[in-house]
Amino acid sequence: MTAAIDLRSDTVTRPSAAMREAMAGADVGDDVLDGDPTLAALQTRVADLLGVEAALWTPTGCMANTIALMHHLTRGDRFLAPAGAHVLEAELGTSAWLAGGLPTPLAHDAGPGRPTPAAVTAIAGASGPYFSLRTSLLCLENTHNGAGGAVTPVDEHRALVAAARDAGLAVHLDGARIWHAAAALGVPVSALTAGVDTVSVCLSKGLGAPMGSVVAGSAAFVDGAWRLRKMLGGGIRQGGVVGAAGLVALDQAGDLGGDHARAARLAEGLQALGWPVIAPDTNIVLVPTASPAPLVAALLDAGVRAVPFGPGVRFVTHRDVDDADIEAVLERAATLPAPS
Amino acid sequence: MTAAIDLRSDTVTRPSAAMREAMAGADVGDDVLDGDPTLAALQTRVADLLGVEAALWTPTGCMANTIALMHHLTRGDRFLAPAGAHVLEAELGTSAWLAGGLPTPLAHDAGPGRPTPAAVTAIAGASGPYFSLRTSLLCLENTHNGAGGAVTPVDEHRALVAAARDAGLAVHLDGARIWHAAAALGVPVSALTAGVDTVSVCLSKGLGAPMGSVVAGSAAFVDGAWRLRKMLGGGIRQGGVVGAAGLVALDQAGDLGGDHARAARLAEGLQALGWPVIAPDTNIVLVPTASPAPLVAALLDAGVRAVPFGPGVRFVTHRDVDDADIEAVLERAATLPAPS
Amino acid sequence: MTAAIDLRSDTVTRPSAAMREAMAGADVGDDVLDGDPTLAALQTRVADLLGVEAALWTPTGCMANTIALMHHLTRGDRFLAPAGAHVLEAELGTSAWLAGGLPTPLAHDAGPGRPTPAAVTAIAGASGPYFSLRTSLLCLENTHNGAGGAVTPVDEHRALVAAARDAGLAVHLDGARIWHAAAALGVPVSALTAGVDTVSVCLSKGLGAPMGSVVAGSAAFVDGAWRLRKMLGGGIRQGGVVGAAGLVALDQAGDLGGDHARAARLAEGLQALGWPVIAPDTNIVLVPTASPAPLVAALLDAGVRAVPFGPGVRFVTHRDVDDADIEAVLERAATLPAPS
Amino acid sequence: MTAAIDLRSDTVTRPSAAMREAMAGADVGDDVLDGDPTLAALQTRVADLLGVEAALWTPTGCMANTIALMHHLTRGDRFLAPAGAHVLEAELGTSAWLAGGLPTPLAHDAGPGRPTPAAVTAIAGASGPYFSLRTSLLCLENTHNGAGGAVTPVDEHRALVAAARDAGLAVHLDGARIWHAAAALGVPVSALTAGVDTVSVCLSKGLGAPMGSVVAGSAAFVDGAWRLRKMLGGGIRQGGVVGAAGLVALDQAGDLGGDHARAARLAEGLQALGWPVIAPDTNIVLVPTASPAPLVAALLDAGVRAVPFGPGVRFVTHRDVDDADIEAVLERAATLPAPS
Repeated sequence: MTAAIDLRSDTVTRPSAAMREAMAGADVGDDVLDGDPTLAALQTRVADLLGVEAALWTPTGCMANTIALMHHLTRGDRFLAPAGAHVLEAELGTSAWLAGGLPTPLAHDAGPGRPTPAAVTAIAGASGPYFSLRTSLLCLENTHNGAGGAVTPVDEHRALVAAARDAGLAVHLDGARIWHAAAALGVPVSALTAGVDTVSVCLSKGLGAPMGSVVAGSAAFVDGAWRLRKMLGGGIRQGGVVGAAGLVALDQAGDLGGDHARAARLAEGLQALGWPVIAPDTNIVLVPTASPAPLVAALLDAGVRAVPFGPGVRFVTHRDVDDADIEAVLERAATLPAPS
Repeated sequence: MTAAIDLRSDTVTRPSAAMREAMAGADVGDDVLDGDPTLAALQTRVADLLGVEAALWTPTGCMANTIALMHHLTRGDRFLAPAGAHVLEAELGTSAWLAGGLPTPLAHDAGPGRPTPAAVTAIAGASGPYFSLRTSLLCLENTHNGAGGAVTPVDEHRALVAAARDAGLAVHLDGARIWHAAAALGVPVSALTAGVDTVSVCLSKGLGAPMGSVVAGSAAFVDGAWRLRKMLGGGIRQGGVVGAAGLVALDQAGDLGGDHARAARLAEGLQALGWPVIAPDTNIVLVPTASPAPLVAALLDAGVRAVPFGPGVRFVTHRDVDDADIEAVLERAATLPAPS
Repeated sequence: MTAAIDLRSDTVTRPSAAMREAMAGADVGDDVLDGDPTLAALQTRVADLLGVEAALWTPTGCMANTIALMHHLTRGDRFLAPAGAHVLEAELGTSAWLAGGLPTPLAHDAGPGRPTPAAVTAIAGASGPYFSLRTSLLCLENTHNGAGGAVTPVDEHRALVAAARDAGLAVHLDGARIWHAAAALGVPVSALTAGVDTVSVCLSKGLGAPMGSVVAGSAAFVDGAWRLRKMLGGGIRQGGVVGAAGLVALDQAGDLGGDHARAARLAEGLQALGWPVIAPDTNIVLVPTASPAPLVAALLDAGVRAVPFGPGVRFVTHRDVDDADIEAVLERAATLPAPS
Repeated sequence: MTAAIDLRSDTVTRPSAAMREAMAGADVGDDVLDGDPTLAALQTRVADLLGVEAALWTPTGCMANTIALMHHLTRGDRFLAPAGAHVLEAELGTSAWLAGGLPTPLAHDAGPGRPTPAAVTAIAGASGPYFSLRTSLLCLENTHNGAGGAVTPVDEHRALVAAARDAGLAVHLDGARIWHAAAALGVPVSALTAGVDTVSVCLSKGLGAPMGSVVAGSAAFVDGAWRLRKMLGGGIRQGGVVGAAGLVALDQAGDLGGDHARAARLAEGLQALGWPVIAPDTNIVLVPTASPAPLVAALLDAGVRAVPFGPGVRFVTHRDVDDADIEAVLERAATLPAPS
């Protein structure tokens, strides 16, 4: 019997041989006491890539985002984020109960996953009759996972940041898949962090590291982030053993185009089978359907793993699937009735 | 020089002579130790009016809502509320940082201030790829202040509650102005609390008490609410002195129609002057305008007090303005250029 | 049958005729929108009495303390307070979960309720191996309720404040019964607020108002306190109705000596009956006993109301008990076996 | 020049060759989606060792303790812990602001780091005049780091647990160095978890893993702990790469006696030099001194790394120092004046 092809997420990738070798040989120290040398090297490299002053490794992207939001928000502050953002839908409410923020979602009026600068201006500037809710942060996400890996182009990014600045807001960018946005646009990742105060990036999604994210920004922000990370339980010791895999992952950050091509092929093939499909910008393919659970179950029976995702099903291409796997997925999908 | 006519809010009403007399003669006790007899009587009367088991006086409506949300929400739980709800816009983010909830606003697809049951069902039922955000509460508001005192009719209320129940959600009703909704619909207030778990009502808006709200629900809820109220700093002592005014206010709860007629007259008059106006359901008149601040300032110069309110200006009729005041407001408005 | 004499707390006092009259005639406004004139007058008067820039009325002393602690503490900061302080024992943990502080209690090494400056210095200066707990606040309490209304003298107060300052700590004083401390010491209350950043005082304990406390400090602190008060649900409207009673209460603030004499007489009388008694500094008499509940029950049967209080029973003299009441209490106590 | 000998903490140990090999070859999966097989094996093994139903890996001990406290505590609940406990002094206040608990430290009346059951009973049973602080948890620590690695014997542990149970409290054990307690007492670790609801243990201190702790308890507790871990940002993906090192670390858990002997030798040697020393139970040696910072600096100059620790200096023996290192430390210490 054939193994299922796993398109649930790009987090399912297993560490490569190069990563395993790097982990086994990593130079390490106690990161709470002295700083671990491998994590330090990783952090410097990521800060350089992102065009910011400093960076800090975290075990997960959730922790990276939470640290940034804790930094930016004071009890009860409003923050704005595109509807369906990861910080709204997939972080178990931590932006509210832990970072203390009250979100207002922004409609995708400029395109999938993409709010307009005018919406930022309007909401941040609205006032109430007495003590107003204080709006202090715009949280962007590029690519936007919930909108199917949708890419915000450079000029739109800049216009959103400018609107936020004009309204006195700080800007955090959830760049878990910023590598995919940069690849799709053919720009360096630093073009997509222009003007932000803080940014988080993930090493364990498309880049394939076994674990780890990075949160980055000014040196002053990162100084405080060390303390917040320890509070949240992320103050690990000889972290270089996983940091070494992160460095190998970064070597692969410029090489994601194949995943995008495979997602495009998957979307095209499913469409040819009569499936409803949202055309992908990057490595995520969404199939909208009113009944995700039965479709996920039928796919699993057919040897394809996908996940329910809002009112639909999500497929993600990644480092551990190749062209042949995609063709196999399409063959297996062809045995199922097209969803509606 | 003529005094300004104050339409900023129905909270500006001053206690009547009857209220002052009642306060001076109130029977009191230590409400932390024994229960204050006047507050106890007030609480019983409100519970009866609302058709629920028990009730608890609070200094403000914000505290009443916060207690209810703290009761319903566990760290990070999602709650649903109509866009622009008081708990979202006018309570300084306490639903998030204090009660721990992550709000998702519901669009007004059924009318001003009125979401659809289908939206409740869709959002509460959506699922993510792994640990999902837990959605646990629907928070309604009737009348809906942000939407201009808009009324949700009984059948729509019932359908929303039913959708919430089917999705496993608790229901809280912010009924700060439920008296106005009941008056507009010609139904008892208990018709508008059908099926809810908890409800808050305000004594100091249209009803005219100097301060005080009430949060109500099952006896078990109210037992716990005593403790939560003390935590928030609302465990007052001889509260009967203000409770007595609340009892007088309740006598007036059935007599709000004049405020609605005056709001209608104000809206009609402003419209006749060429002003953009949202036709009022109850006692709130909204004038949408891109530049609220200059309009508020011009009105103040002309002897009319109103407040900036989102992208517009709000006028509220209340117990301390009469027909002649409304005509005077219209005369003064006529001296200003119509806003755009 | 004779009514029970109620010595459970000085919070049980009922508003006087003068207070009721003042409430009925109070000049009022909407305190959220404009500031209520009576509350404004009360606040100015309290700030003057305390020798600080500004003050804010709150419904309760718990809210007053919570506002101050929220102001001083950032997530996880350590604060120091005498063991058994009201903020530690009687505010339902709000200093921790709501204000975010981690308390370290200080031993009463200088006398009942009175820590030493050396203890402040030692704890605030201790450091750990890496990121240290940040100690940011000393919270004093004068008189100290848990220690039986114990008074901290002026010079000790000053030395504690100096030690806190030297260690970089802010100082908050819970002065719920500061009026009693000032009376016992024969100094103005402002002598007992020397050097503090913030102070709370209560109008509804010994002073007899039906409800209300005040939190005070710099103008900048009070500016922020308005917002925090609204967050906690203390942003009331025509608060002047209770503020007027507070002003009358302040007229009585200099006249508490009779309560102290009655407490001394009660202690002496109980001791003469063979009861264990802690000699009172002010208006609180503690009877240490391993089994408070049965003693409280027996007292109630005999017509005396008192409360269990840590490992003992507390009696509090106040405005509504007179010399004859105390003699009656002693007669009734004489019918009971002396506790052990 | 000779390298400094690092006795700052047993967290400074570097992963052994066996650990590195295990990491390179680890069988892994996506721990958020499916459970990682190596972490699953580790968790089962730790649960068995501790004699509890289930266990969950966490990146750090701080996160393990925070998860347990979040589970046990409701907003504002009091918890008891021995004075100087890690959850009080070394976790940046998270027990308060994050888990919502108000701590009351217990005096070390039974010995270093060891409170008495009577203290638990007295505090948990004390009651106040109205709504009382709710006491819900006893948090033990064995060995007690702040008290110099002090061991609580089995019978004392059982008596403390029994007192907590009788008072209706849950019990959490911070067993970061439970391996050392078991070694010192010559009992299995499960003897030291008898009766507890939850327990945390550390893999990266004496056991030498590069990172990782485990929190354990009932199956129901661990079910909920998965969600709490994700909230805090500990939901890692292919965690087996570090879990594999944890499994190797567990192989070494029974072999810590050498560290204890070396600590005893260090203490004896320092005492012979006229230093004040607290005789160690396990692998931690405390030198009390009023001025820790200059002593730490002088030691560093002499080639010995130690840390300031409360009012003293801490030395910790561990897997990466041997007998010769200890003799070298003593030689270097001999060049310094004895501290006072």
